[in-house]
Amino acid sequence: MKEEFWFKEYHHKGFYISFKKDKILKELKSKYQKIEVFYNEFWGNVLILDGLVMITEKDEFFYHEAIAHPPLFVSENPKKVLIIGGGDGGTLREVLKHNVESVDLVEIDEEVIKASEEFFPKIAAYFNDKRANIITEDGIEFLKKTDKKYDVIIVDSSEPFGPSSVLFTRKFYSLMKDSINDYGVISAQLGSYLFHKNFISEFFKDVKDLFKDSYLYTGITPTYPGGLWTYGIFSKKNSIKDSVWENNIQTKYYNELIFKGSLMSEI
Amino acid sequence: MKEEFWFKEYHHKGFYISFKKDKILKELKSKYQKIEVFYNEFWGNVLILDGLVMITEKDEFFYHEAIAHPPLFVSENPKKVLIIGGGDGGTLREVLKHNVESVDLVEIDEEVIKASEEFFPKIAAYFNDKRANIITEDGIEFLKKTDKKYDVIIVDSSEPFGPSSVLFTRKFYSLMKDSINDYGVISAQLGSYLFHKNFISEFFKDVKDLFKDSYLYTGITPTYPGGLWTYGIFSKKNSIKDSVWENNIQTKYYNELIFKGSLMSEI
Repeated sequence: MKEEFWFKEYHHKGFYISFKKDKILKELKSKYQKIEVFYNEFWGNVLILDGLVMITEKDEFFYHEAIAHPPLFVSENPKKVLIIGGGDGGTLREVLKHNVESVDLVEIDEEVIKASEEFFPKIAAYFNDKRANIITEDGIEFLKKTDKKYDVIIVDSSEPFGPSSVLFTRKFYSLMKDSINDYGVISAQLGSYLFHKNFISEFFKDVKDLFKDSYLYTGITPTYPGGLWTYGIFSKKNSIKDSVWENNIQTKYYNELIFKGSLMSEI
Repeated sequence: MKEEFWFKEYHHKGFYISFKKDKILKELKSKYQKIEVFYNEFWGNVLILDGLVMITEKDEFFYHEAIAHPPLFVSENPKKVLIIGGGDGGTLREVLKHNVESVDLVEIDEEVIKASEEFFPKIAAYFNDKRANIITEDGIEFLKKTDKKYDVIIVDSSEPFGPSSVLFTRKFYSLMKDSINDYGVISAQLGSYLFHKNFISEFFKDVKDLFKDSYLYTGITPTYPGGLWTYGIFSKKNSIKDSVWENNIQTKYYNELIFKGSLMSEI
């Protein structure tokens, strides 16, 4: 009988989810983190960073639609977009559905980009869009140096420990504030609605006053802890609740009503 | 070292979730199904029927809010409500938030009601509400006999195999149609948006034409397969999309925008 390998992700010491590795595709240690890719019959190819599910082919659209479209609609007519993290390319795909001029994607780990090109080619194809500019660099260092002013910044990071921990600080949000224009909008993934509630609550209280209008909101994420993810959205001037969503953008699940129905001032 | 017991629910042969049984509270075989209750440190008390998670103390509100409020708001001023299944009492709790006159709850398995009274006392407390009438009977047999006309029927069943399989038939929906008044509305849980898509699609096509207005809709369910559940809503006369949701009902998560944003004509 063929030996079976299973991946487990604990969401709590007494609760985990487990995927059969129907085919192991890649396992390496990059400069920043452990990267694994395997194929699962139901979910398709699955990307794991430091033991946590990042994307699966089947359900990645839920997360990427929810992180990308809200800030783009709140900023009204965004032309210049910055993605910090997002090395798989899913957020980039959603951003490029809008009529933007340029998207800078700043991913710290080039091995994530390579893994996406090899095992998620449909998503990684958007790296080749003429409007996309892929930069392998630390997001904070990039922001410190750049003079560019963005309409939208999207923080598509991994969890708040390891290489992404610096992205969950007031200092980083102040840096981003300086790098968006007067109508600029920021969105960021903040964690599981059920499992990381206390962390999200404290972090949001710490940064929300930097912006005129700030909310938490949620979206479905079948393979993330608890199935429901929390995002933050921060606007320098435009009202988030009164944002107008045009009908010209196709999504598979996320939309204006689901977004507006999930807006929260606290968690 | 103390021996550890873990419950596993496979959502696919290559994917499962697992809960540590921090304390085993009940295990029995009723006339209809296997009933288990255990305590888990994160989720609280967990009810399992025939190997599938039904409710956990921590997340049951997501499911019960989503199945109960939509039909009650679509029917406008519901007075007489029937719940088929729902032996844990969570749907009853949500229904009783509305200004209804009577709620008949028809649960086939009295052992489910007993388990709820013993291990989910906060939910089961609603069995004692003066407006609630708890009946231990087969839902189909009850409908065949009754002359009552309901404003709302909610089908809060287990999965479409075992004791609940008859609740996923056109014949059962015809019976329900005869038991609601001219403005009557029905809601029913239909399965996982990701794992049972084909079944839901076929079933919905088979019954939707029995009613003037029919939709599928979704809601979060952290401990159900895929984290996103699909419901059907069927209205004899009133428009589902134009339903007006009053602000007098408190929910923890579900609301008018999340409901309306999730309405689908097909899946």
